[in-house]
Amino acid sequence: MVNTLQKGEYCILFMRQLGAIVNKNRSARMIIRPATPDDRGAIWHILEPVIRAGETYALPRDMTEADALAYWMAPEKETFVAAADGEILGTYTIRANNQGGGAHVANCGYMTAAEAASRGVARAMCAHSLAHARARGFNAIQFNFVVATNERAIKLWAHFGFAIAGRLPGAFQHPRLGYVDALVMFLTL
Amino acid sequence: MVNTLQKGEYCILFMRQLGAIVNKNRSARMIIRPATPDDRGAIWHILEPVIRAGETYALPRDMTEADALAYWMAPEKETFVAAADGEILGTYTIRANNQGGGAHVANCGYMTAAEAASRGVARAMCAHSLAHARARGFNAIQFNFVVATNERAIKLWAHFGFAIAGRLPGAFQHPRLGYVDALVMFLTL
Repeated sequence: MVNTLQKGEYCILFMRQLGAIVNKNRSARMIIRPATPDDRGAIWHILEPVIRAGETYALPRDMTEADALAYWMAPEKETFVAAADGEILGTYTIRANNQGGGAHVANCGYMTAAEAASRGVARAMCAHSLAHARARGFNAIQFNFVVATNERAIKLWAHFGFAIAGRLPGAFQHPRLGYVDALVMFLTL
Repeated sequence: MVNTLQKGEYCILFMRQLGAIVNKNRSARMIIRPATPDDRGAIWHILEPVIRAGETYALPRDMTEADALAYWMAPEKETFVAAADGEILGTYTIRANNQGGGAHVANCGYMTAAEAASRGVARAMCAHSLAHARARGFNAIQFNFVVATNERAIKLWAHFGFAIAGRLPGAFQHPRLGYVDALVMFLTL
């Protein structure tokens, strides 16, 4: 499935999807493209504060840069970056959530640069990921572990049609709030 | 957390737990112990028909022996075998289901030898895994992907107190039945 689309096609797919979703000033400047090794520094700049905060991803808060990049840019994932004016504002990954009989369901993870909050970056990446998942032939997208206190993200995923398919009681130990639930969210494409 | 218990202690834990669950004739003969490299052949003998059938695990039906054993005996997992009279009747794995803030929830997978069906092997392994998860300090066990047509397993997990925490619509492509749901099951220890 991998590598049937070229860079230019991602942009076209993305621009089409984006037109209806974010305002034109933003969409005119933002592109989403596959990450390259040259993006590693910019990706780590986004990942580091999210991982260190430990409030939204079930990753070790002391994870090293090498481990975090190995995780985010693992061979089984496609990794994208959202950029505007040459600045990388966000990154997301997409992969098959399971093998074999579960390989038709995708899984994605999204992170936005701290300094780019409220600029529609997560929204644009989610829209891109839906289009990309369809283009790759996936039938659905599943988020395995959405921390229930991450209300802003849950609201955004719901906007795109994701339903809460499950609730995992106390499955996440939040550094400030203690044990909180995690949600499984699911969208049939 | 790993390696604080020794082999003998597993057996004691298991025998205690087992006494109340399977009949004494069986429990007197069956032991559950950590797998060793010498068990690889016996484990593959159990895994192969389950993987080839493709009805209960989301793994490639044509998975090689090497890949299957690498998956089942991965470094991040503890792998056990259930044996009676020197014959290996089942195998299960336990690992942290997530890292960081999710590392207090375990995940397990169980497989019983085709020829050992209906002998209480899965039940004994599940009982062992609950005791072992507690001994390792896990707060809960989550099954991420229980194929909804696997009714016998679901009934057994429910017997041990697992609740259906989520339902993933059409998330599994069953080789005979087409797209069927998968369940997320969860037990707080």
